[in-house]
Amino acid sequence: MRQTSLYTKTRKTLPKDEVATNAKLLIKGGFVHKELAGVYSYLPLGVRVLTKIENIIREEMNRIGGQEILMSSLQDQAVWERNDRWSDKKIDIWFKDRTGKVGFAWSHEEPIMNMVRHHIGSYKDMPVYVYQFQNKFRNEPRAKSGLLRGREFIMKDLYSFNVDGEGLDKFYETMKKAYMRIFDRVGIGNITYLTFASGGLFTKFSHEFQTLSSAGEDVIYLDKKGKIAINKEVMSESVLKEIGVSKKDLVEEKAIEVGNIFKFGTKYSENMGVTFKDKSGKEHPVYVGSYGIGLGRLMATIVETLSDDSGIIWPDSVAPFQVHLIELEKGSGETLYKKLEDRGVEVLYDDRDATPGEKFKDSDLIGIPWRFVVSKKTGTKVECKRRNSGKAELLTYDKAIGKLL
Amino acid sequence: MRQTSLYTKTRKTLPKDEVATNAKLLIKGGFVHKELAGVYSYLPLGVRVLTKIENIIREEMNRIGGQEILMSSLQDQAVWERNDRWSDKKIDIWFKDRTGKVGFAWSHEEPIMNMVRHHIGSYKDMPVYVYQFQNKFRNEPRAKSGLLRGREFIMKDLYSFNVDGEGLDKFYETMKKAYMRIFDRVGIGNITYLTFASGGLFTKFSHEFQTLSSAGEDVIYLDKKGKIAINKEVMSESVLKEIGVSKKDLVEEKAIEVGNIFKFGTKYSENMGVTFKDKSGKEHPVYVGSYGIGLGRLMATIVETLSDDSGIIWPDSVAPFQVHLIELEKGSGETLYKKLEDRGVEVLYDDRDATPGEKFKDSDLIGIPWRFVVSKKTGTKVECKRRNSGKAELLTYDKAIGKLL
Repeated sequence: MRQTSLYTKTRKTLPKDEVATNAKLLIKGGFVHKELAGVYSYLPLGVRVLTKIENIIREEMNRIGGQEILMSSLQDQAVWERNDRWSDKKIDIWFKDRTGKVGFAWSHEEPIMNMVRHHIGSYKDMPVYVYQFQNKFRNEPRAKSGLLRGREFIMKDLYSFNVDGEGLDKFYETMKKAYMRIFDRVGIGNITYLTFASGGLFTKFSHEFQTLSSAGEDVIYLDKKGKIAINKEVMSESVLKEIGVSKKDLVEEKAIEVGNIFKFGTKYSENMGVTFKDKSGKEHPVYVGSYGIGLGRLMATIVETLSDDSGIIWPDSVAPFQVHLIELEKGSGETLYKKLEDRGVEVLYDDRDATPGEKFKDSDLIGIPWRFVVSKKTGTKVECKRRNSGKAELLTYDKAIGKLL
Repeated sequence: MRQTSLYTKTRKTLPKDEVATNAKLLIKGGFVHKELAGVYSYLPLGVRVLTKIENIIREEMNRIGGQEILMSSLQDQAVWERNDRWSDKKIDIWFKDRTGKVGFAWSHEEPIMNMVRHHIGSYKDMPVYVYQFQNKFRNEPRAKSGLLRGREFIMKDLYSFNVDGEGLDKFYETMKKAYMRIFDRVGIGNITYLTFASGGLFTKFSHEFQTLSSAGEDVIYLDKKGKIAINKEVMSESVLKEIGVSKKDLVEEKAIEVGNIFKFGTKYSENMGVTFKDKSGKEHPVYVGSYGIGLGRLMATIVETLSDDSGIIWPDSVAPFQVHLIELEKGSGETLYKKLEDRGVEVLYDDRDATPGEKFKDSDLIGIPWRFVVSKKTGTKVECKRRNSGKAELLTYDKAIGKLL
């Protein structure tokens, strides 16, 4: 794509109330636009990153048997009342309409329980794993962390339905691996740790995936060697003993919760009467698990952990383009641009009338993994540099393209 | 996909208050689930259809230079006030939160006007065409038409920004053609007509795309030969004269509005101060157009117009699967299923323990374009039938697959 046709430009000014690094970089680079505190719109570059993250997650959810659905945002009071959670005293972040009778999905747990009733009746109908990419609305009082804590955000939420605890446990372990594959693929696997967290309803622990970052709102105790962590919330001598970790191996770290998995067990099924018949026709409550990843938060985490003073450093897997092609004289990039497009390379071609300095600065800010520079100086060759490296190589066009394929 | 793994089953019972044919068929077939009046969730089969419709629209929007964005649902009171439309007297279908200060997008017109300000400053920055697939929330009092009129629905909305009226007019004509390509590609082109409708702010007319259907809420006067229609709202002797249509060529028809395009011109830009500098540095208001298609409504229109007493008849382009493979004896479909999957054919394989009668009935209801039946009787061949045809052919596996590729 030609940069002169790109809708957005990089920005120098920021909204006054913006304090988070992730939002600052994403706004400056032209990835997002701030609508309200904790509410962001995605611009074309942002949509490209978001779509790549979404597709990686989708592939991993499909791989383990997930089926995609899309639930509504508007929700029924009566459904939530069946599980006794409509109350503002229990859920204090709810957006409701002016009548107070329609809710805007802060979660889809109760509605999904209500919906599966129509399609799960027998043990033969399970296991069922359904997931969606859908907005959540949460009236967060502290929406100061940019895209890390939004009042509106897209979440991948998967729900598992099994006939027994063994089935649930087995799928839960499968999901742990799928989540680690996702965080690996988006480029933060090496700083993301499975973390014991408070269990809630059914089990002593749930599990979070925590990415080390000074921007994190969570504190974890990390056993780097054992690749396991414990959220401060549940940290105690007895917990250490239970999971077999020694205090001396732990370091305190700030971290961002990029994923969360937990087991409802039969708690909600019992409350809401979601049951199935076994072989003998006897009714039992369904075993349920819930597995979430916030897409905007994940994007923001990548930005927080993979950027430098000049801007963002996107991993290849989620970058808006593979190559930023920069010409220093009008038209000098045309030939290579055509070659790259013909080979199906995702290229942003800086064909603007701007100084080399402006172009390099914008390129570092936007953070595309490869920078290709063509000029009188490079002649029939092109200067290739990775965003996160100081070293540039002068290569023929074909050799440069070879680096990408 | 094996039907035994499909999350949904066909349903015999319907929600009590459901009266619309499209919703009845989509609920029975397992495409959608009704959450509230005018609020539907999409089940796996529904997501497959929705995604295909979305991708067709996306291709056509990209083809004419559209850039995809994704705006937030939560909206700022202050932005709407700048164009004087926050008032419930002006927009009576608004969902607002309990404070009355946050709105849930009934439209994105004002927020997009506000957003482009940051990226359009000079005549060089235009034209700009941005679009999204995003939820709209409208507190419709008459939400009785299933997915034709939802209180929550996904819309493709594109906004055009040009430096002058000529640019706007030219793009508007380009969009007319793109819309007709979309309706052609989803299978309703032959019954969909460009229709003169009320213009509103800037022009005498806007244009709708109206699909003939007895379920339609609109009345149009259609000149079939001239391939043009006039919405009853604007029908008059002087209008007929103006657009050069003779009354005797017109027939009154009920129709569904599947698309709508209109020109704001400079009206909103002036109100909201969205301007650009021309070559001499003089400021002018931007010329704006708006172009919408509701995805759920489009799906519902296909169902309303392409179904029979037994169920839905999906066009190939948007069908959830290309083939419904039905085995009459346990395992007799395995070989062909494997062959189809290997060739990349989207196949739903009915491997359930069910009677042939039940399988055929469900197959007609779900409406996949090709039905392949294998049984003892068909031997090494397969019985192939189109959903909308009574005629079946007995073909070798390879010949049958050849029909699809």
